[in-house]
Amino acid sequence: MTTNEKLSLLREKMAEAGVQAYLVPSSDPHISEYLPDHWRARAWLSGFDGSAGTLVVTETESGLWTDGRYFIQAERQMAGSEIVLYRMKEKGVPTIQEFLLSRLKKGQVLGIDGMVTAAETVLDMETAFSAQGIGIRSEDLITPIWTDRPSIPQSPVDLLPEQYTGLSAAEKIAQVRSRLKENGADAMAVTRLDSIAWLLNLRASDVVYNTSFVSYVLLTQETAVLYVDSSRVSEEALDYLKKNGVAVRPYGEILDGIAAIDVPTVMLVSVENVNYRLYLAMEENPRVTIVKGEEPAFCLKAVKNPVEIANTKNAHIKEGVAMARLQMCLEEKLAAGETVSETDVGELLVDFRKEQEGYMEDSFAVIAAYGANAAMMHYHPTPENHAVLQRKGFLLLDTGGQYVDGTTDTTRTYALGELTDEERRYYTYVLKANIGIARTVFMEGCSGANLDIMSRTQIWKYGLDYRCGTGHGVGFVGPIHEGPQSLRMTNHVPFQPGMTITDEPGIYEEGLVGVRIENELLVVEHMETKYGKFYAFQPITYLPIDTTPVVLELMNEEEISWLNDYHQMVYDTLSPRMTERERIWLKEKTKPLEK
Amino acid sequence: MTTNEKLSLLREKMAEAGVQAYLVPSSDPHISEYLPDHWRARAWLSGFDGSAGTLVVTETESGLWTDGRYFIQAERQMAGSEIVLYRMKEKGVPTIQEFLLSRLKKGQVLGIDGMVTAAETVLDMETAFSAQGIGIRSEDLITPIWTDRPSIPQSPVDLLPEQYTGLSAAEKIAQVRSRLKENGADAMAVTRLDSIAWLLNLRASDVVYNTSFVSYVLLTQETAVLYVDSSRVSEEALDYLKKNGVAVRPYGEILDGIAAIDVPTVMLVSVENVNYRLYLAMEENPRVTIVKGEEPAFCLKAVKNPVEIANTKNAHIKEGVAMARLQMCLEEKLAAGETVSETDVGELLVDFRKEQEGYMEDSFAVIAAYGANAAMMHYHPTPENHAVLQRKGFLLLDTGGQYVDGTTDTTRTYALGELTDEERRYYTYVLKANIGIARTVFMEGCSGANLDIMSRTQIWKYGLDYRCGTGHGVGFVGPIHEGPQSLRMTNHVPFQPGMTITDEPGIYEEGLVGVRIENELLVVEHMETKYGKFYAFQPITYLPIDTTPVVLELMNEEEISWLNDYHQMVYDTLSPRMTERERIWLKEKTKPLEK
Repeated sequence: MTTNEKLSLLREKMAEAGVQAYLVPSSDPHISEYLPDHWRARAWLSGFDGSAGTLVVTETESGLWTDGRYFIQAERQMAGSEIVLYRMKEKGVPTIQEFLLSRLKKGQVLGIDGMVTAAETVLDMETAFSAQGIGIRSEDLITPIWTDRPSIPQSPVDLLPEQYTGLSAAEKIAQVRSRLKENGADAMAVTRLDSIAWLLNLRASDVVYNTSFVSYVLLTQETAVLYVDSSRVSEEALDYLKKNGVAVRPYGEILDGIAAIDVPTVMLVSVENVNYRLYLAMEENPRVTIVKGEEPAFCLKAVKNPVEIANTKNAHIKEGVAMARLQMCLEEKLAAGETVSETDVGELLVDFRKEQEGYMEDSFAVIAAYGANAAMMHYHPTPENHAVLQRKGFLLLDTGGQYVDGTTDTTRTYALGELTDEERRYYTYVLKANIGIARTVFMEGCSGANLDIMSRTQIWKYGLDYRCGTGHGVGFVGPIHEGPQSLRMTNHVPFQPGMTITDEPGIYEEGLVGVRIENELLVVEHMETKYGKFYAFQPITYLPIDTTPVVLELMNEEEISWLNDYHQMVYDTLSPRMTERERIWLKEKTKPLEK
Repeated sequence: MTTNEKLSLLREKMAEAGVQAYLVPSSDPHISEYLPDHWRARAWLSGFDGSAGTLVVTETESGLWTDGRYFIQAERQMAGSEIVLYRMKEKGVPTIQEFLLSRLKKGQVLGIDGMVTAAETVLDMETAFSAQGIGIRSEDLITPIWTDRPSIPQSPVDLLPEQYTGLSAAEKIAQVRSRLKENGADAMAVTRLDSIAWLLNLRASDVVYNTSFVSYVLLTQETAVLYVDSSRVSEEALDYLKKNGVAVRPYGEILDGIAAIDVPTVMLVSVENVNYRLYLAMEENPRVTIVKGEEPAFCLKAVKNPVEIANTKNAHIKEGVAMARLQMCLEEKLAAGETVSETDVGELLVDFRKEQEGYMEDSFAVIAAYGANAAMMHYHPTPENHAVLQRKGFLLLDTGGQYVDGTTDTTRTYALGELTDEERRYYTYVLKANIGIARTVFMEGCSGANLDIMSRTQIWKYGLDYRCGTGHGVGFVGPIHEGPQSLRMTNHVPFQPGMTITDEPGIYEEGLVGVRIENELLVVEHMETKYGKFYAFQPITYLPIDTTPVVLELMNEEEISWLNDYHQMVYDTLSPRMTERERIWLKEKTKPLEK
């Protein structure tokens, strides 16, 4: 079936259901970013398979909303279909809500599947729509037309031992209960899959690169119930749950669990994270009072404990060794005149990662983008569609690993040979932007909104920008994008010691060039004085940054000094795990710049 | 009467009125920052005469809340009284509301004078207090005890010609009416005195350093009425008002004017700017519907028009010449061994300003602070209490002028002789912080919250901070502090081309040293590309920055290059207005730094 044929089928179902528009978000019942195939309805319908995007279908139109990372990809993948691409945040582009309000008339109805739509999305719309006499109805119109829909995943659920996690499940549950109390609540449904994996010290692989498993937790001050199919949980994990006071019930019974609450209970709901159907279930139970608030587990796990920090650093050292070996290998192959493609890069890298202890899988699909391909921020080479490396221009490599002791995310942009002046300048701007954040000292209370400009102004100076945040948190043996903190102009969550954040500014010129340099940074205490607490960033990515493209005149001494210190630290950290030949190579790659 | 005696009298009135606590804010019916003596009740009662502070009196306690600028001054001025100083934003210090909630019991009542309290303050408190069963009553308990209270000012109100203002009163009124419509409103009471002065192209001097006059404007889509005593308005100004469609009524009749609205009217109210009594008058009129929103004139006047910008630059050039002459004169006097005190500095400066065309008065009391006095951010020397300059350490001079074509605000810190290493380092950190903001290029949409760190991190690095914003807007022949934009971590008003902002980081170490360097910056367009609009700052203060204290090793080339460019621009701008002897001096003061 073509996209247009699928849309016709959907419109038939819409007519039967009496809805004049239908919303297909990119999410599952857990409002996840990366979805099991079972819930990838938007990709199935539209053909666009990027990680973020919402499809809206009316009787006569259809539109897909996505952000700057995916403009190029979405246009390519939807070419030939009727779907119009709405470039979010560009001037004159309506929001989904504005679009729907302009298309739907009084008395008409928007259909959504409440089970895969965040409560917040629906509640926001209800406010705006009811004022215009437009209705919203929860109904699943996808299942009837998606006849070959994949099933819900069932990967094995295993224990992640406390030597890695630092805290027991019981200790984490106690932390969440205490946060609930602080928010005037008794109970909550934990619905984020990464929160559940963290809370219970369990991991699986329902979705490639992710370590979580489809489940819910219903937590009160006295009880903790994990809703998951127990057949997929290992004996060891089941024992651990029992020891930590967690009961197990089937995944499908969560709505019954909420309905069965029979004592007056104040439930904390994070409306961004809970789906609309669960929200309704709480609202329909007369014993339940809802208070809205932040998801405690989500906030707690963002601050890594000392055991997690030590483990994460170790994972990054292993990753650094693997990445350095890959770079050496690529250099040798290219020097020998061998043909190396973008896809080869990822395959070689996995081989080097496998040499490292505790490597499980990659933490996301390798982005190995040569030349202009790197202008697509989330480009992935495929066997059908990839470039061959040449001895000029840049190779952008953005990749990470899931190790049993931590998750990594690194980007390097390598000069493969001759560069244009523009390539050198862009590279240098990005490097200055990266160092801009890395060097920043800030006081308690500062958020991404306060810090982002330390990177971005280095690129803005030249009338350039990158259409994405500067960085994101990273999970612990968890999701590659983790909140609540981020380096964005709009993020107001204060950084705390123990949080990690990527620092990954870039320049992306369509059809021309892409440059990104990414380190992971750990928020650490810098000092405490009578003025208060001062924090700084400690890089926990250990890998040389290519200095050959740097335009030295554009760098100031403070930046050069940071880079030289960083390279010394990289050498000191990686060299003990390397062979003599590798150490010589590393010494060269980390040698100080001088002006 | 001592402070304690005044408080006893107030407590008698409180008992008669049946209120158990009384709030004395620092404001007048127009919620002004700088108050006519008539409304300086907090200063009269407490003895503390800084520009910001709120006094709270209960049956047994009294407390004064002020911010970091005034901690030292408030402690000194209230020494010997019963009043406790509450250092706002310091750890463990309750807010006024928290304090009152902990002191007042159910059924008790807080007294306030609604005529001098912002509607917002009372409305916020009402929400919190009513939940606890605590009442709020508007009653003036100050007039009965303040027997020698000064009268309401009556300075002459004159026209500021359109060659300076660029727009007529009628044009500005049309702009405000259009903003009202955009906000779904028909009418408003303009209550900010600086807004009224701007709107009608009138100026006066009810309060020293300020150019406004006590008045209200009641504006509908059809009518405009200025409430002011017409006897104080010049013939020329009265003619101008008539020609621009503005009627005049007595100041005291504003409440009657609101009560007389007899057609259905939606009134825009900025609850921060309108006093509680006026707010009640609108609420009590059944024809009036209140919508809350931002004050249109306040927002419009922050963006200077091209005529205002050209005039403001000219005022700054004149100020630069006067300030340079003062500096030369001080250098000569000190070299000759003459005795010069902090108060002499201000007096000499006024003489130099008087040589400049269109000088009216200073824009605020000269801050000439020698040595450790400069650690008090808003220190003013007085005939009774001032220091004599010595040939070592720093003189901090923060001052500005009201010219007929603009308002200025400049700070320089001058080395008077030998400096300690610490003084040099602190000076260099502050200079780097100043340049940090000045060099920043930013995109449309960025606010003070996004930009502030460009300055502050240079000082945070060393565990230091300044307990105030980095900068504020400046009026046009208007208030020295003008919003809505500011350089603060908490200000989310986007900068727009035509806005001005001071850039004035500092280091203040009690008992030791104070350093501040302040330029005024104009927001200008930098470039527009496919990514959007990029803005930058153009310095409009023309005065050398002392380079003798600079620790060159701490400065990077980009900073040095900014400073050298700035100094070249200062020389080019000021030298045509100087004598040959002065030019030679200026050449030396603006000579490029080299590393």
